[in-house]
Amino acid sequence: MNKQVLYKRKVHFYETDAQGIVHHSNYPRYFEEARGFFLEEFGFPYSRVREELNVDIVLLELFVKYKQPLFFGDSFNIKTVLTKIDRFFFWFEYTVEKEGKILAKGKTKHCCIDRNTRKTVSVPKQIQELLKDG
Amino acid sequence: MNKQVLYKRKVHFYETDAQGIVHHSNYPRYFEEARGFFLEEFGFPYSRVREELNVDIVLLELFVKYKQPLFFGDSFNIKTVLTKIDRFFFWFEYTVEKEGKILAKGKTKHCCIDRNTRKTVSVPKQIQELLKDG
Amino acid sequence: MNKQVLYKRKVHFYETDAQGIVHHSNYPRYFEEARGFFLEEFGFPYSRVREELNVDIVLLELFVKYKQPLFFGDSFNIKTVLTKIDRFFFWFEYTVEKEGKILAKGKTKHCCIDRNTRKTVSVPKQIQELLKDG
Amino acid sequence: MNKQVLYKRKVHFYETDAQGIVHHSNYPRYFEEARGFFLEEFGFPYSRVREELNVDIVLLELFVKYKQPLFFGDSFNIKTVLTKIDRFFFWFEYTVEKEGKILAKGKTKHCCIDRNTRKTVSVPKQIQELLKDG
Repeated sequence: MNKQVLYKRKVHFYETDAQGIVHHSNYPRYFEEARGFFLEEFGFPYSRVREELNVDIVLLELFVKYKQPLFFGDSFNIKTVLTKIDRFFFWFEYTVEKEGKILAKGKTKHCCIDRNTRKTVSVPKQIQELLKDG
Repeated sequence: MNKQVLYKRKVHFYETDAQGIVHHSNYPRYFEEARGFFLEEFGFPYSRVREELNVDIVLLELFVKYKQPLFFGDSFNIKTVLTKIDRFFFWFEYTVEKEGKILAKGKTKHCCIDRNTRKTVSVPKQIQELLKDG
Repeated sequence: MNKQVLYKRKVHFYETDAQGIVHHSNYPRYFEEARGFFLEEFGFPYSRVREELNVDIVLLELFVKYKQPLFFGDSFNIKTVLTKIDRFFFWFEYTVEKEGKILAKGKTKHCCIDRNTRKTVSVPKQIQELLKDG
Repeated sequence: MNKQVLYKRKVHFYETDAQGIVHHSNYPRYFEEARGFFLEEFGFPYSRVREELNVDIVLLELFVKYKQPLFFGDSFNIKTVLTKIDRFFFWFEYTVEKEGKILAKGKTKHCCIDRNTRKTVSVPKQIQELLKDG
């Protein structure tokens, strides 16, 4: 089965806009937080990935479907699933939920690059091990 | 032919991240700026849409494909095309270019809501007129 | 004695800039989070202030002194103290600390406004009670 | 006389918050843009400072006084003055104006650091020349 985590978050006031809702550009940031939590939960925080493996994780594709807005004061969860990983790429899916109701969905595609050359490298073995099925 | 505008922009330092590039969450913001410029160019700025028609434009779907990064100091263009509009929805496509090279592509889907009820309404005639072909 | 809380936080990657540190514009956001936590800890979250009292808390003055930077991966605390409150204004002071070391200090001055008229109102009794000494 | 520039800007929708005004954390970002414009106007953009002199400009102190809010759709100016410079530090003052009315004021204090060591260095001669009086 695919690995997944549940990331809990509250809306900050500065994330709202003049429509009175969370501005859409915060969702990719929430997803980034959720991925960070995912790596942490499986024992290899992104700060260590950068320092120990000299690798940056790069976002290649982003998709978000907004169904219902988030408001200031809301507490919500992001269910984060690693749906696929191969030698060079990996994909996450996100479900933003409040009180059991799905508010938004997202998908991201990533690769790894060498921090010095910025060239694509294969996903490091340590991350492969970390992310692959149970 | 579809209506389009060319929006010019420079990267601000605060839009960069510790990878030394523009953080991916700024692209939806750039697209929002480009849509605003689009409405302005065709004579109906979004601030007037909100005040005169009492309508908010809502983002329903966002897609971004990141090919090459933007760096601090970069000047770039966003070619913004209204690709489709019907009674309830409209779609934009964006091409982020620097020195003739495509760095990223994006798509967004939108609808209009009444600012008081937050219920979906049909796209106001004034915007329909504005956006429709030639 | 003045009321105070300790707010704990981690740095998110999107808060860093191309200098490799947390961008300075995030500190006022951290302070806002810390104030929100303060109100929550004393039983009256800002979302309830807005809904039940129809009052917005407005920032009038902001001061930040940056001593040492925050980096991605850092965990830090913000010690938040309500230093003064009178009929119309209140002041907070913030100390950003990591591993016992002071990284930054801040001060903010606030008032309350009616959400409909945007006119200054006296600080509501409920908040006065909440904030005043022991 | 002190050197100054006038930086023109429009409010972007994503800079607003649920109070319907520009969120206060954007003002330090506007000031950063204005400083960037200042350096550009005097012939030495910050991107060149970083690349050619290997120097980062660091923010040491920030002060903002908010008088009247900015709203979505507003066009405004930031009058930016270099008020003082010595061997190690320099200070800017900012006046945010709309239609001749002062909406906010700001001050910042800066120094320069070596990009590799992150140690404070004296302000490079090229910047001293650039910034000093008339």
